[in-house]
Amino acid sequence: MATFKVVFLPYNREVTMREGETLIRAAMEAGVHINASCGGEGVCGKCRVIIESGAVKDGITEKLSAEDLEKGYRLACRSVICGDVTVRIPIESEVDASVLKLQFTGRKTAHIIQPDFGALKEQGLFIPPVEKRYLELPEPTAQDNMPDTTRLVGFLKLHHDEHRLAVSLPVIRKLPDTLRADHFRVTATLVRPVQSGRKSNIIHIEPGDTSDRNFAIALDIGTTTIYGEVIDLKSGEVLSAAADFNDQISYGEDVITRIVFAEKPGGLEKLNAVVLETINRVIGKIIRRARVGREEISSITLAGNTTMTQLFLKVEPRYIRRSPYVPAATLYPPINAVSLGLDLGDHVEALVYPQISSYVGGDIVAGVMGSGIYRADELTLFMDIGTNAEIVIGNRDWLACAACSAGPAFEGGGVQFGMRATKGAIEDFSIHPRTFEPMNVTIGSVRPKGICGSGLIIMVATLFEIGIVDSKGKYNRDLETSRIRETDGVWEYVVAWQADTQIDRDIVLTEIDIENLMRAKAAIYSGCQTLLDEVGLDISMIEQIILAGGFGSYIDLEKAMTIGLLPEIDPERVTFVGNSSLMGARMSALTNRIRLDVAEVIQRMTNFELSETPSYMDHYVAALFLPHTDMDNFPRLKARLENRNKI
Amino acid sequence: MATFKVVFLPYNREVTMREGETLIRAAMEAGVHINASCGGEGVCGKCRVIIESGAVKDGITEKLSAEDLEKGYRLACRSVICGDVTVRIPIESEVDASVLKLQFTGRKTAHIIQPDFGALKEQGLFIPPVEKRYLELPEPTAQDNMPDTTRLVGFLKLHHDEHRLAVSLPVIRKLPDTLRADHFRVTATLVRPVQSGRKSNIIHIEPGDTSDRNFAIALDIGTTTIYGEVIDLKSGEVLSAAADFNDQISYGEDVITRIVFAEKPGGLEKLNAVVLETINRVIGKIIRRARVGREEISSITLAGNTTMTQLFLKVEPRYIRRSPYVPAATLYPPINAVSLGLDLGDHVEALVYPQISSYVGGDIVAGVMGSGIYRADELTLFMDIGTNAEIVIGNRDWLACAACSAGPAFEGGGVQFGMRATKGAIEDFSIHPRTFEPMNVTIGSVRPKGICGSGLIIMVATLFEIGIVDSKGKYNRDLETSRIRETDGVWEYVVAWQADTQIDRDIVLTEIDIENLMRAKAAIYSGCQTLLDEVGLDISMIEQIILAGGFGSYIDLEKAMTIGLLPEIDPERVTFVGNSSLMGARMSALTNRIRLDVAEVIQRMTNFELSETPSYMDHYVAALFLPHTDMDNFPRLKARLENRNKI
Repeated sequence: MATFKVVFLPYNREVTMREGETLIRAAMEAGVHINASCGGEGVCGKCRVIIESGAVKDGITEKLSAEDLEKGYRLACRSVICGDVTVRIPIESEVDASVLKLQFTGRKTAHIIQPDFGALKEQGLFIPPVEKRYLELPEPTAQDNMPDTTRLVGFLKLHHDEHRLAVSLPVIRKLPDTLRADHFRVTATLVRPVQSGRKSNIIHIEPGDTSDRNFAIALDIGTTTIYGEVIDLKSGEVLSAAADFNDQISYGEDVITRIVFAEKPGGLEKLNAVVLETINRVIGKIIRRARVGREEISSITLAGNTTMTQLFLKVEPRYIRRSPYVPAATLYPPINAVSLGLDLGDHVEALVYPQISSYVGGDIVAGVMGSGIYRADELTLFMDIGTNAEIVIGNRDWLACAACSAGPAFEGGGVQFGMRATKGAIEDFSIHPRTFEPMNVTIGSVRPKGICGSGLIIMVATLFEIGIVDSKGKYNRDLETSRIRETDGVWEYVVAWQADTQIDRDIVLTEIDIENLMRAKAAIYSGCQTLLDEVGLDISMIEQIILAGGFGSYIDLEKAMTIGLLPEIDPERVTFVGNSSLMGARMSALTNRIRLDVAEVIQRMTNFELSETPSYMDHYVAALFLPHTDMDNFPRLKARLENRNKI
Repeated sequence: MATFKVVFLPYNREVTMREGETLIRAAMEAGVHINASCGGEGVCGKCRVIIESGAVKDGITEKLSAEDLEKGYRLACRSVICGDVTVRIPIESEVDASVLKLQFTGRKTAHIIQPDFGALKEQGLFIPPVEKRYLELPEPTAQDNMPDTTRLVGFLKLHHDEHRLAVSLPVIRKLPDTLRADHFRVTATLVRPVQSGRKSNIIHIEPGDTSDRNFAIALDIGTTTIYGEVIDLKSGEVLSAAADFNDQISYGEDVITRIVFAEKPGGLEKLNAVVLETINRVIGKIIRRARVGREEISSITLAGNTTMTQLFLKVEPRYIRRSPYVPAATLYPPINAVSLGLDLGDHVEALVYPQISSYVGGDIVAGVMGSGIYRADELTLFMDIGTNAEIVIGNRDWLACAACSAGPAFEGGGVQFGMRATKGAIEDFSIHPRTFEPMNVTIGSVRPKGICGSGLIIMVATLFEIGIVDSKGKYNRDLETSRIRETDGVWEYVVAWQADTQIDRDIVLTEIDIENLMRAKAAIYSGCQTLLDEVGLDISMIEQIILAGGFGSYIDLEKAMTIGLLPEIDPERVTFVGNSSLMGARMSALTNRIRLDVAEVIQRMTNFELSETPSYMDHYVAALFLPHTDMDNFPRLKARLENRNKI
């Protein structure tokens, strides 16, 4: 897709935007404030800008007079970029002009990285776990009447250098007729051992040559959503993908309520059955979309958190939620897929990612494997943020992990107008440092209904950096604006007046909301500090950050550092890996190297129960500030704040 | 049981007999002829002997007059030995007296040997394949909340020196509740790897200490009969045994008719189901008799011929009976017993003995392992004689095997008055070298109904050694006796006149019967020669013989050598191991050493398809004589014949 340059005057800021984006989003990206209340729907008419050169599509509403149009005015929120363009933000007062000297951080999200199959091959890490071999065996004669398996195994030994082979009973059962179906021309499916020197298993035998059709499934068993992919094991390509809500949702929103349900008579069996229904539905979808036969799937790799994994494997989860929080197992052996209830061929073995602890599960381990942190030279922080934020810190030499009870703030919970990141949620925000007028951008560019997690981070960070909120999360009560007010004893900032919303009420951000966000970010940041403390390192030493999970892609990195959610590092050193659980499952389907490494990784990955780690509470209390009591770890922010104070 | 000396005069032969045996059996054992037609029922009254000293019980019938009794006459067939006794065979003619100079071989069956668990231990061969470990694990705390499997595996590592362990999913499923059932005191069942350095599998977990209850089942899946045993894995003792007819018999007597049935639609499934019914019935019997719980059985080991093995495992057997006679597999992996349909705990793995070829199956491999031929210094011949006689020749350095189509002569088939070895079958026989009167001894000491296999061997050997039958198996037509006659163009010997039988007919042995026996023994002997030929050795080099199968225990060794069924060696070097298939299964249940060795044994065991081995037919034709065209391999017989001719 084409990209164009957008220059904002008089700030002289330039950003590159993709064709079709709006000017208001370009302004956000550039860190340029434009008043905008209605989220981008075009109804408030405040986001007036002048097109100086180049052109945009649309941007014209009844809010602009003929005269305005003549002068080049457009509404930024409705102006669609279709070429290089220079835009002037009208300066209508001295107040506006004074802002010119202030530096804002432009919006910056993490680079998206995805593992590259080619690179895997180049690095010599590509050891396909399942391979097919087409064989033209000599037909038996009176002089050569060795048993069928001996013929098969012997031929593989002689002509394919396969010296350690085991044959399973189902294959032996099929072998006599399959060999004779097409004159002893067959395709054998071999599962490679994880450790070299072990035996390869012949798990499947088909008449004729089917060696070019060899596929795997990767699956992420999420508490909410189950994602699946069909992978071509010859090319390494993802042929299809699909997702579906985990049917277990009817029995509880989160893992704790699921475990409670599982403890009822028949509860475990019920949850096991419904997750299998969902998984089999996803499998059905992806194999249809990929146009592969069910029998052509040779392996399946799954990752999920500890509770999801135990429910999938029908392993009693009750002790996960009871102190001292003991999961059943770390490593699970490969298990026949059919015996687990998966709707696949009976030759397929299911590989399940191992768990570290009750709250650092296979999804995180898959993330660690998929993201490559365990092979990193740099001291790396891996985070998957949700209700529980799981963090892993380390590099090729050591790894430590913990689950932080972040609470639901990032998912819109515990925030008065918090909401999930769906249409109408304010996801981007700026504020005029003198008028305190907001720039709201919503998902779907409609009038706002509430504030989503990423919007909340931006909002609090911006209010703090402008000086409207202090480091304790309290509003400056002395500012001359009607937007900051006390309602029923609680101070709040009016993000959008009733008229500009869809909900017939003012949308506000209260000090209680800010406190909840601060608790959430403090839980994570102090978790990182505690892990580092335990190994004698300091948070300032972190050299790169890998964000995982859907939330990670929306986080404005500078803002996340401003509130002290992320340690302050060069945003270029932050990457986003998306659904790392699925990515890890895919990697594991593609190369045995990952399966070999994972056993070693879980050995050296030290889990910390933060509640049992004495230093955690001190770190937590110190982190209950914006960004933190210790500003020395936030030098860039410190400089900006000092600069602000000078102006 | 007490034994007594019996001395026969005037031959001056002494034998030691067990209390309760009859004098006629003692005479057989001593190689002393007494006329006796009625098999031991006491009705013909011919077996008159005089008790010179000592005493017998019974032996008195209306066939003896008061005067006879006075003189010490008794009927040998009804006289029960109850002390040392000297018996005189009355010499009533010169004919009788002339016999004194002739030497007969006394009856001699093979020594019975059984493997000794103590010896196994002493030889360092005892590596129990399944062990139980009682563990008192520390209970988890907030500081020590590792996953349950990690706790179990870690404890075994630390306190029991178990460093390579795998845990199966069923155990993981049981683990959380089992650990907490008795304060983390549990008993773990470990299956040892066959090869050292591999992982032990934790297959079962029970609360509390059950380590003194650990049992295995050994099973022989015979075509006709299924034998089972419960073995105490702590003591090595066989706690119980039982046998039952294989229900498959309703679908065919032998393996070929079973395969034919299996080829019908649903036939394989049916035969699989009925053999499982029989096996489960036997399992039920033996665990009841042993007073062990079904859950206390930790392993099962099975051996059967190739067809029985494939039917048990539901593996298509059709190619076994079709040229070029290809079985499905040699080695089968360990297989979950429940998945095979065995009525055992779901933690039990079934171990099935490997096959060599379509007609040298797991029963023979089990025999090789159980009898120890693969570890023998001596050049050993192992034989299991039935319709198919399987032979294995070799020692610790090499092994060769073949199946010989012996036909049913040894089971009474193809012989006019042949019958199975049941009540009324003539099982022992002698003949007066001048009068040609027989001494018949039947199973159950009743009037004869027919001739069983072992009786047939003795009969033909005796007739040949006396000179009544020549080396071509033809009767001497010139003898003055009504017992040798021509009926419908076929020459025959009347073994028992109609009056002395149960069947209202004369029981005869025809030249056709003799020819059939000669074919059978020639097939086996020439099989041995062919194997030895192929490795450049000669049959005279055989140093010991191991007989297996029920038939082996009844064979009169000297007589078997006389007809050329067995190569002529010192009878002391012939041993009988009984049901070697069951013995091999038991050994395999007791020590992994056998399972380790068997993989190597089947590698170096060369199978010969005799019909495809060019020298076989020459050897076979040369063996169609009594004992053989080449008398040089029968020096003892040659000497006896030369001696006979001198007299």
